[in-house]
Amino acid sequence: MGLVDVQRLKEIVGAENVKDDKADLYVYGSDSSVHQAMPWVVVRPHTTEEVQNVMRYANPRMLPVIARGAGSGMSGQAVPIKGGIVMDFKKMNKILEINLEDTFVRVEPGVVDDDLNRALKPHNVFYPPAPASSRIATIGGEIANNASGVRSVKYGAVRDSILGMKVVMANGDLIHLGAKTRVEATGYQIDRLMVGSEGTLGIIVEATLKFVPIPKFRCLGIAKFNELEDAGNAISEIMSSGIILSMLELMDNIAIKAVNQALDLGLPDVEAILMFEADGMAKEGVDIEVKRMMEICKKHKGFGLELSYDAKERTRIFSGRKKLFPSLSRYKEGYVCTSLADDMAVPYSKMAEMAKKIHEIAKRNNVIMTAYGHCGSGCMHTKILMDPTKKSQWEDAKRAVFEIYSFVRSVGGTTSAEHGIGISKAPAFKREKHESLELMRALKKALDPNNILNPGKLMDAPDDWVTATKLRYTVKLEGK
Amino acid sequence: MGLVDVQRLKEIVGAENVKDDKADLYVYGSDSSVHQAMPWVVVRPHTTEEVQNVMRYANPRMLPVIARGAGSGMSGQAVPIKGGIVMDFKKMNKILEINLEDTFVRVEPGVVDDDLNRALKPHNVFYPPAPASSRIATIGGEIANNASGVRSVKYGAVRDSILGMKVVMANGDLIHLGAKTRVEATGYQIDRLMVGSEGTLGIIVEATLKFVPIPKFRCLGIAKFNELEDAGNAISEIMSSGIILSMLELMDNIAIKAVNQALDLGLPDVEAILMFEADGMAKEGVDIEVKRMMEICKKHKGFGLELSYDAKERTRIFSGRKKLFPSLSRYKEGYVCTSLADDMAVPYSKMAEMAKKIHEIAKRNNVIMTAYGHCGSGCMHTKILMDPTKKSQWEDAKRAVFEIYSFVRSVGGTTSAEHGIGISKAPAFKREKHESLELMRALKKALDPNNILNPGKLMDAPDDWVTATKLRYTVKLEGK
Repeated sequence: MGLVDVQRLKEIVGAENVKDDKADLYVYGSDSSVHQAMPWVVVRPHTTEEVQNVMRYANPRMLPVIARGAGSGMSGQAVPIKGGIVMDFKKMNKILEINLEDTFVRVEPGVVDDDLNRALKPHNVFYPPAPASSRIATIGGEIANNASGVRSVKYGAVRDSILGMKVVMANGDLIHLGAKTRVEATGYQIDRLMVGSEGTLGIIVEATLKFVPIPKFRCLGIAKFNELEDAGNAISEIMSSGIILSMLELMDNIAIKAVNQALDLGLPDVEAILMFEADGMAKEGVDIEVKRMMEICKKHKGFGLELSYDAKERTRIFSGRKKLFPSLSRYKEGYVCTSLADDMAVPYSKMAEMAKKIHEIAKRNNVIMTAYGHCGSGCMHTKILMDPTKKSQWEDAKRAVFEIYSFVRSVGGTTSAEHGIGISKAPAFKREKHESLELMRALKKALDPNNILNPGKLMDAPDDWVTATKLRYTVKLEGK
Repeated sequence: MGLVDVQRLKEIVGAENVKDDKADLYVYGSDSSVHQAMPWVVVRPHTTEEVQNVMRYANPRMLPVIARGAGSGMSGQAVPIKGGIVMDFKKMNKILEINLEDTFVRVEPGVVDDDLNRALKPHNVFYPPAPASSRIATIGGEIANNASGVRSVKYGAVRDSILGMKVVMANGDLIHLGAKTRVEATGYQIDRLMVGSEGTLGIIVEATLKFVPIPKFRCLGIAKFNELEDAGNAISEIMSSGIILSMLELMDNIAIKAVNQALDLGLPDVEAILMFEADGMAKEGVDIEVKRMMEICKKHKGFGLELSYDAKERTRIFSGRKKLFPSLSRYKEGYVCTSLADDMAVPYSKMAEMAKKIHEIAKRNNVIMTAYGHCGSGCMHTKILMDPTKKSQWEDAKRAVFEIYSFVRSVGGTTSAEHGIGISKAPAFKREKHESLELMRALKKALDPNNILNPGKLMDAPDDWVTATKLRYTVKLEGK
């Protein structure tokens, strides 16, 4: 802490935008992961120039700088594992340009996803990645994590919405990347390399994003299943049938129970629910796709089928899925909902097997796990529900995580679909990408030779997430 | 030439797959650009292991290695400006897997685009980037150049179709990049960095690609205009109206004349033709979009409007555009069609201005230039038609190129939409991306420390394309 000249930082960003009292540092020491580590100081820049000046101060002094959006990342991306300066982008939250003629928007990194979409709505267009945290997630954080969400099956992840960006490099240089046009073949796509780099290669200070027309018609369907495997098979068949869908969501029985318990929504206590959606500018086109999905659900013993074009009705049907994440935290007294192995992607044909495996692994390891997710893009979500005060439960969770990712790799899947690696998922990530870790380190060294940008993450994170940082929970020793 | 141990290369890839006689070297010394430079030797690997062994031989000896697909690149990407080993991928042309369940295809780099699409067609899916050269262009070359084509407005460029790849690095290491799933947030997207790197960062030996359903209905429309500006304004309005289109092509009067002259197609001798297309699974949805485009064309004084859903009729309407490139070569006796400033992208609102500017610059510089292109993705094509035997014409072309790119930059456009940089476009590229050239060099050095992968291209290409290499044409000195 003594390493940082707080006075100098106050000169750069203004005294009111520097925090170094303990309570603040504590808050900035965690995100939505299980990790905790105290930063030395927090700065809130208002301009690109301030960001550049902070970097020019930090770089020759080898001080870590950790960019932070909303802190909604679930893998510890914003946790300052090596201490240093947390750079909070809350105040760089201006929408700089909505260009309807050239169909792009330029934003500062602290703009909240939902705020951007509220600003675009009057123009009948939207920015589509839509992670579940869109109410708080910032565009800068979404880019740094290559976020995606319920409609990524049709509209892609953040990487598919990027046209260009401005990035401040470790040495304070400001670089324009990408273009304002839909296609570009002008040299290395460094903007694409920044996507998903989790603040380790550069600091995004502006983004140019595509938007797309809001479809006139959206139809949401729901189907219930008495066997999880039937739902999984329906997913595989839908995805291999050439149907153009905008959403395909799964909830297993634990997810359903969690939502019913927390919110009294009265969802049927079945083994699985599938929700599917198609959208478009003509109702006939949407009809074709949703009816095909309905038939496939029926074929795989789906029942209680409903379809709705009505916005209110769709909100009602979808509310269980929408509120699932907070509901899981209240599933069992004394248990918390942890994101330790939570967003793997597997090939479509392995979705049913993946869901079954999650339950099997949970049972074997004395934790509660649920299977849900954005099946349309191959993303299977799970959460590990556990008693965080018990040391043995952390050992149980560790085994479960190891088994989950071993299975994911064995079926040709990948560690993270949309939440990123950070600290928690680094061990699985390192096993999966073992061939390219040295390459990643070489790229990191080329762009950040002093290793000050979010150090200790991704390929450089510790091999054991349990001991990587302090945990956010007080763990008691127990006789097991 | 004496630097290469041809015998050693014969041991690696087989004697029949090594060429070092002068006639062969001459052929491999040019691509579809104006450049010419002799390689030292040509190898045709059949397997990834052979590629690795060639690299293991070349890397410690600092021998340049230039990967080559079809040689259809227009900017000199495959021209061995520093000599070295040209690695021809013609023999690595197997489609390794068509996975309909998990909706991806795995291919070797030498697979020709049209061959892949012929193999996918029976399954009702297609690989969409579709550059005009798809009849000969290979997937490896398309990835290395981030190619795109007529339908990129809806289906994106090659970068949007990539899921993963296998790459042989400069030192011979084989690295798996990306995943088999639609979304992935598992560390640095090095596969995206390989896209558009023109063989300078690694050698693609396998690609995993997405495919998409073939739409049931495609409707192509055509409109004629007496003023180029009216067509340009129609383009701008179509693109800002939220219309979901699959194609929007412009041909100016020179393009029309060239096609008529070469092929006697009887296109109307108007100032501009627009061709527009929408596609989808329901006719109603397609109708909505094409009718909106037709109305906008009418509003901007478009006439002679035709619409057709019929495949044959569409082919007839489109044949002029399809055959434009070869037709341009025959436009004027003694003139050749050069790709010197040929595929800039500009914001939609600047399309009309760009088209006008092309004519103005051509006139001022004593060359013939035409304006056409994939306006839906912001790509404006042009070609410089000139007498290549006259030294003064090269000076004229040089001035025209400089002026074109100065204008492109002034309106926020980018040097290349889809043909890449290579040698010819390096001067404009370097001016546009001056802030990130050092970054690109740092990345190149990190991945290819001995600078053997296609050296002397992109940020390392000479500053003057006219003198960068020998020209393919015999230039006579003349009294001007």
